[in-house]
Amino acid sequence: MFNTIHEECGVFGIFEPEKCKVASSVYYGLYALQHRGQEACGIAVCNDGVIDYIKGIGLVNEVFNKENLKNINTGNMAIGHVRYSTTGGNNINNIQPIVIQHNKGNLALAHNGNLTNAYDLRASFELNGAIFHGTSDTESICYSIVKERIKTDSIESAIKKVMTKIKGAYSCVALSSTKLIAFRDPYGFRPLVLGKTKSNGYVVASETCALDAVGATFIRDILPGEIVVISNEGIKSIKPESHHKKSLCIFEYIYFARPDSIIEGVSVHEARLNAGKILAQESPIDADVVIGVPDSGIDAALGYSLESNIPYGIGFIKNKYIGRSFIAPSQEERENAVKIKLNVIKETIKNKRVILIDDSIVRGTTSQRIVKILRDAGAKEVHLRITAPAFKYPCHFGTDIDSQENLIACKYKTNDEICNHIGADSLAFISVNGIHKLAKDLYCTYCDGCFTGKYPIRIPNNINNISKYSMTIKNIKKDA
Amino acid sequence: MFNTIHEECGVFGIFEPEKCKVASSVYYGLYALQHRGQEACGIAVCNDGVIDYIKGIGLVNEVFNKENLKNINTGNMAIGHVRYSTTGGNNINNIQPIVIQHNKGNLALAHNGNLTNAYDLRASFELNGAIFHGTSDTESICYSIVKERIKTDSIESAIKKVMTKIKGAYSCVALSSTKLIAFRDPYGFRPLVLGKTKSNGYVVASETCALDAVGATFIRDILPGEIVVISNEGIKSIKPESHHKKSLCIFEYIYFARPDSIIEGVSVHEARLNAGKILAQESPIDADVVIGVPDSGIDAALGYSLESNIPYGIGFIKNKYIGRSFIAPSQEERENAVKIKLNVIKETIKNKRVILIDDSIVRGTTSQRIVKILRDAGAKEVHLRITAPAFKYPCHFGTDIDSQENLIACKYKTNDEICNHIGADSLAFISVNGIHKLAKDLYCTYCDGCFTGKYPIRIPNNINNISKYSMTIKNIKKDA
Amino acid sequence: MFNTIHEECGVFGIFEPEKCKVASSVYYGLYALQHRGQEACGIAVCNDGVIDYIKGIGLVNEVFNKENLKNINTGNMAIGHVRYSTTGGNNINNIQPIVIQHNKGNLALAHNGNLTNAYDLRASFELNGAIFHGTSDTESICYSIVKERIKTDSIESAIKKVMTKIKGAYSCVALSSTKLIAFRDPYGFRPLVLGKTKSNGYVVASETCALDAVGATFIRDILPGEIVVISNEGIKSIKPESHHKKSLCIFEYIYFARPDSIIEGVSVHEARLNAGKILAQESPIDADVVIGVPDSGIDAALGYSLESNIPYGIGFIKNKYIGRSFIAPSQEERENAVKIKLNVIKETIKNKRVILIDDSIVRGTTSQRIVKILRDAGAKEVHLRITAPAFKYPCHFGTDIDSQENLIACKYKTNDEICNHIGADSLAFISVNGIHKLAKDLYCTYCDGCFTGKYPIRIPNNINNISKYSMTIKNIKKDA
Amino acid sequence: MFNTIHEECGVFGIFEPEKCKVASSVYYGLYALQHRGQEACGIAVCNDGVIDYIKGIGLVNEVFNKENLKNINTGNMAIGHVRYSTTGGNNINNIQPIVIQHNKGNLALAHNGNLTNAYDLRASFELNGAIFHGTSDTESICYSIVKERIKTDSIESAIKKVMTKIKGAYSCVALSSTKLIAFRDPYGFRPLVLGKTKSNGYVVASETCALDAVGATFIRDILPGEIVVISNEGIKSIKPESHHKKSLCIFEYIYFARPDSIIEGVSVHEARLNAGKILAQESPIDADVVIGVPDSGIDAALGYSLESNIPYGIGFIKNKYIGRSFIAPSQEERENAVKIKLNVIKETIKNKRVILIDDSIVRGTTSQRIVKILRDAGAKEVHLRITAPAFKYPCHFGTDIDSQENLIACKYKTNDEICNHIGADSLAFISVNGIHKLAKDLYCTYCDGCFTGKYPIRIPNNINNISKYSMTIKNIKKDA
Repeated sequence: MFNTIHEECGVFGIFEPEKCKVASSVYYGLYALQHRGQEACGIAVCNDGVIDYIKGIGLVNEVFNKENLKNINTGNMAIGHVRYSTTGGNNINNIQPIVIQHNKGNLALAHNGNLTNAYDLRASFELNGAIFHGTSDTESICYSIVKERIKTDSIESAIKKVMTKIKGAYSCVALSSTKLIAFRDPYGFRPLVLGKTKSNGYVVASETCALDAVGATFIRDILPGEIVVISNEGIKSIKPESHHKKSLCIFEYIYFARPDSIIEGVSVHEARLNAGKILAQESPIDADVVIGVPDSGIDAALGYSLESNIPYGIGFIKNKYIGRSFIAPSQEERENAVKIKLNVIKETIKNKRVILIDDSIVRGTTSQRIVKILRDAGAKEVHLRITAPAFKYPCHFGTDIDSQENLIACKYKTNDEICNHIGADSLAFISVNGIHKLAKDLYCTYCDGCFTGKYPIRIPNNINNISKYSMTIKNIKKDA
Repeated sequence: MFNTIHEECGVFGIFEPEKCKVASSVYYGLYALQHRGQEACGIAVCNDGVIDYIKGIGLVNEVFNKENLKNINTGNMAIGHVRYSTTGGNNINNIQPIVIQHNKGNLALAHNGNLTNAYDLRASFELNGAIFHGTSDTESICYSIVKERIKTDSIESAIKKVMTKIKGAYSCVALSSTKLIAFRDPYGFRPLVLGKTKSNGYVVASETCALDAVGATFIRDILPGEIVVISNEGIKSIKPESHHKKSLCIFEYIYFARPDSIIEGVSVHEARLNAGKILAQESPIDADVVIGVPDSGIDAALGYSLESNIPYGIGFIKNKYIGRSFIAPSQEERENAVKIKLNVIKETIKNKRVILIDDSIVRGTTSQRIVKILRDAGAKEVHLRITAPAFKYPCHFGTDIDSQENLIACKYKTNDEICNHIGADSLAFISVNGIHKLAKDLYCTYCDGCFTGKYPIRIPNNINNISKYSMTIKNIKKDA
Repeated sequence: MFNTIHEECGVFGIFEPEKCKVASSVYYGLYALQHRGQEACGIAVCNDGVIDYIKGIGLVNEVFNKENLKNINTGNMAIGHVRYSTTGGNNINNIQPIVIQHNKGNLALAHNGNLTNAYDLRASFELNGAIFHGTSDTESICYSIVKERIKTDSIESAIKKVMTKIKGAYSCVALSSTKLIAFRDPYGFRPLVLGKTKSNGYVVASETCALDAVGATFIRDILPGEIVVISNEGIKSIKPESHHKKSLCIFEYIYFARPDSIIEGVSVHEARLNAGKILAQESPIDADVVIGVPDSGIDAALGYSLESNIPYGIGFIKNKYIGRSFIAPSQEERENAVKIKLNVIKETIKNKRVILIDDSIVRGTTSQRIVKILRDAGAKEVHLRITAPAFKYPCHFGTDIDSQENLIACKYKTNDEICNHIGADSLAFISVNGIHKLAKDLYCTYCDGCFTGKYPIRIPNNINNISKYSMTIKNIKKDA
Repeated sequence: MFNTIHEECGVFGIFEPEKCKVASSVYYGLYALQHRGQEACGIAVCNDGVIDYIKGIGLVNEVFNKENLKNINTGNMAIGHVRYSTTGGNNINNIQPIVIQHNKGNLALAHNGNLTNAYDLRASFELNGAIFHGTSDTESICYSIVKERIKTDSIESAIKKVMTKIKGAYSCVALSSTKLIAFRDPYGFRPLVLGKTKSNGYVVASETCALDAVGATFIRDILPGEIVVISNEGIKSIKPESHHKKSLCIFEYIYFARPDSIIEGVSVHEARLNAGKILAQESPIDADVVIGVPDSGIDAALGYSLESNIPYGIGFIKNKYIGRSFIAPSQEERENAVKIKLNVIKETIKNKRVILIDDSIVRGTTSQRIVKILRDAGAKEVHLRITAPAFKYPCHFGTDIDSQENLIACKYKTNDEICNHIGADSLAFISVNGIHKLAKDLYCTYCDGCFTGKYPIRIPNNINNISKYSMTIKNIKKDA
């Protein structure tokens, strides 16, 4: 379950000058963002001011089909969301976009990130009689917007005020009955990009790969603290008044984002190549072949090879048919479980000293198994190189990292102990300094709190109180 | 679509002294109430203060299955709801029970009826920043309860205050984390009964047939204006301070309720027998056989026969396998459509003068077709007798009657014109006086507003404004 | 499971002069025949000599939908089948119509009945190298037809020869690439009727209610031993050369057929009324009300009332929403199980001496429960009258009767013992003589073998050997 | 539809000394073979001589689930099949394993390959009265086995005789009630390997990757013409009496098999690396980067890079969430269709001279689109290198190649014309000589008929007659 790190969301929005099949565009956009969240998804379409939506648990290809998409397809703007839901939060009412009505109209909202003052916000709304249908902080953003909206004359003015009150990470797209609005927190924890469609419409998305999927061209990253408003009157930007140190999540480059995306001007693929190169510089070792764990270790393995001149090899085949409905092997069959999902190409490995590149180690169980199947396949040595530093601290900005007692880097004091546990011949993590060089042209700075414990913004003491909400209300979806 | 009249809901609640499979009981209870609403349903269970729920579009047997029921089955109290949703209101967020969290805990609410001040309520909440996920007035009841709850020290005190502010028809069951609460509007528009389970628990339901389904015994009707609170400390009743003229919907006896239910001390079957007898007295005719249109015309046909001494016959077979997934015949096949759902037993009809009993006429289309198939089957004469007066006015208390321009009794001035349109040899509706005699032992009085236009409570001018909400937000469920 | 008797099949066929949506017609026809088999169904359509089909486990409304029906809808002839499958025989390859290819073309076959020489037929084909995909005797009929077909110049000549070799009960409809053929065994165990569509096509069906469903008019019963061939050259009848004593299954009138059907010139409804009248003559008793167990006891209860002048009453409400997906109550909830499916109308029963009419008693369990709920509802006396004689022998002609050790009439020697077991105040079965009078105008004679053990044709000693086949091959359908 | 070449099947069989969850093993084995057929699949299990099965249209993860697998899971042997069905043959009765009963017992059969005398076989069986439920040649193999089986005393003797009568490609696994039998045609067109499980059982599979998935170890390839019989008495091999020139399908190495499989002693990955190397030798070109079209072009691109010393690059990201339920873009959205499934990594391409490696060209449409997106991404030159020679002839041994009029290599005479059509700067196919070197250690010879038109065995004139069968019988599955 926690053998890997999870991004919690991807967002997508589109505005077209003329009514068309906007839901189809969101559908393709969400397909391109599916790697950012596989638990649930939704699309909300605005047609003549009326917002219709479809939401459900499952992948884009499970929730949407020709019939239901047809029902909401037409409109001039739409937003969509893919979601990875953390434990306990698998409430159907948490699926986004959240679509609501309020005093001055209606609103659809999709959010990637995590608020740090979610508990205080919710508590204060509840004190005034608010009712909550779900447990996500996104519903609090909705209340915040509506609270300001009834006092101001535009949705963007309301959002501007809201951005002074909500803290933490948020890259959002929203629909009112006439506008598509995108806004990003002042630290820019999560990416958000703007593009242009062939029909002179606009697209907003978590990553540029979603622009490619709908044939849109990249315009620019939306700035930290910026609000972009798109309507029949054109596109308008509300820039932030004060500026904070940009704090993009470094793990977007290392793992979350798709290699074909470009974030803040840096190719994710290039950043991963660099991660491999930096690792080769920091932790060189003599070997016969460099291989990567698919999918995110592949690019870095090539980088390591280029830097070290040790040949790059294809070490694994990942079974591409394994999805949510895969029946996991029983305890006694577990031994073969890794080989079902990931099989080794023996020819690449046999009698070789192998450098194995992976993106991260959480509990160490998976690494342990992979090292073992390499040895079983005849590897003479296995040297594990990791393109992230060791996880030691929680993330409060939208990434789901296992609790500290489960993190192998918290359990063991030294690298050698971890290496020993995993069974590799040597082990090295990229350094914290190293990751700050992986996107060399990057004009912004990173958040590396999960490695260093140093967060760009103060974390309130009651940060974990919010989780009590997920204990008091749950729901189970009707099985399909 | 509007060839018949629709009840909008059925509610069910159970409280057991010990934890057990309460969801199963609600499941069987909802099966017994399925005739009150076939569009959607839901069950919410409270287990150690945590409320879980399952909701979905479809019949009880479509939404619930062994697997999902198992997930929520255990608890000591639960409520359920079956829903018929009016046009435009098929929003998944309208499906009940509505389950929410608020400042002092959580709440699940199931509601049968319709508020007459729904628009004003909603508007005032929205003015204060409330957000609405759906379009039903039930969400406004939730806000009303929460608004009072933050100022009082118990859910029942909150509900008591709410009942002075919400107007119209409501028979509700609710769950807090420790209590099952049932409350009924001061006019008692919709039925609500209390029963006792074999394990010394309590059951609340729209009709007694649901008590039978779970092996519970009937205690009494819940009084108009009463609040019943059931908790580990026992059962408590909060009686209304002021009294109104009881105004039970007469159509519960004529059509909505199941014949095996007993409402306000009167057997529904008996009331329908009486309707037939009264019709025989008011509109006698010489004939060879009396038949009823299944299902609700059957009992009245027997009553007509008993009173008139004209033999009772079985005139129709209803195809019991036709459900929601039935593929309706195309235009050219339409002629046989009635015969697929309802076929005539020729032997009963042939060469006979037939008295045909039905419960109501809305547009007249169905009656027209039925008269025709009787004639095709060899009926010499067809005399149509209706156990309700003619519909002429809207219902504001939870029944979905077609718009006035479609009502045959609004289109035509005289009985003869209607009879002519339908093609019967004679036609008679029961009189408004007549229906007031059909439940002879009934100690309460009826609401007959849909026949007379005289409603027990003042209908505000903005009564229809609320429907604007269903225009601005819609949703389409993922197809199963 | 065996608390009731099961018919095993219903068949339907249509031939239209012009191509049209023939699958839709079969769909409606099967809806009308659904009571004859609820486990599986199928439709095969012939379009320009190509036979397409859809088959599946489930009700007509579960197997067919707009999308899949559209794929096969067009053609000029089609056949369909509804199936009740006996234990062990729930093989997906047994679902009919069986559609095969052979040396001279293709063939689709749907069969109602049971062969008595199925074992010998199958054994002899297997000896010659035949392979069987399923376990039903219908596959042997196919082999028989093909074996003759390769030696003759028409499908009807082949079938004529086959009818001298296969023994037992069979009412069949078949499609070749150009002809719709219906044929019925020489004893006429199972009904089969011929009708005419509005577009000058022909329909063949197990019951006339299916003709009504497609707007066809009844022409005549197909004769025992007759082959009817319908093609572009018109309709042709091949009459049998030798004649046997007609032996229609009497249980078609008592239970299987729909009351609105007319079999061999006699209304099923009328026959049931008569069954009630005969019971009133044979086993009169003084009482206050006569009620029937829905659905098939209703007509007979009315007949008993008419003959005895004891008032007819409506005693039960059957829950019409309970289908295949109903979750049966657990052992501890079992007590209420009857009340969920069937609830009593207390008003009809209370303080009354009740005559209860049912169609049959198999194990007695259901009768016992129904008698108990009547007593619980306040019945002073319960007198059970059964419209069939006691089951004592197996049926070899297409009906699934429980094994003899489970039959209450085999367990107990006297009527009093059975009555005592069931808990009624008195009990009477209709006499074997009595049932021979229930269809008074019937020009044919009945098979009453299940009551008397006297079968119209010799039953071979190896009759049960065939069941060994269902032990050696099984299959489980993919869950939807 | 025909933009790619399709393998038609994968087979898997397991025999365990003790009863266990054999269906689970087949399930994992089929997952590993899913790339060989994605249209339908099935598993048949033998438990105490009784053969149960589950079959359905769809992927392994669509047809099987915990519930249905549980029903057949236990036994001591089982076989499975994945199928790609050619146009017109999507008959549910064609899904394998085919499970039948015959005079001496029962039989389950799974087949990979294609018979060249299928028409003659079928015609001769039909002449003797055989009936066919489907259109596949596998049913003819069943008839052939049964025909011999009734004359011999063992299934293996029957199969030995059958192998003298059926011609063409067949790698089969079969179950009788006591034996697992594997047999391979004398030319060895399709691979078939033998392995050993940890519990001393045996596994037979199309590829070694399926052995890995169930934790089995590779023993050896099953020989062309060999029959392997596994039972409680151990394993037995019946070797062929005469020998033919081995004729393994060369396309198994180029495209069909998984890179982690080892066929006839040669690693598929290694063979593809070699294909790249040979291409680099045969058709060198100066460039900046070598990239492969995922998935099968990747290995060859690395080989080309190694041989040419031009850097290997990662040029594409394939969207791994796109499955059967993906809604294809409409005509106007088509332009972006390639980018949704396959997006370019611009950083790798921009301003580069690109060598693009793909496995084959069928119609040329896909290559055309891929070349275009490379140019759009900034490639200065695009040089296309193909690891197979040009397709010019049909395959009669189990591969589905488009009809000759659609093949780009039949449409155009010269390489330049094709290159021009595709829009590349240069184009080269590997030579026919070249492919004979790609598996350098291979002790067998290949079939290269699709490139050369020279087939290892005589192709009868009536080879295409068999396709008439798929025209006369079709079926449509009930939608899930």
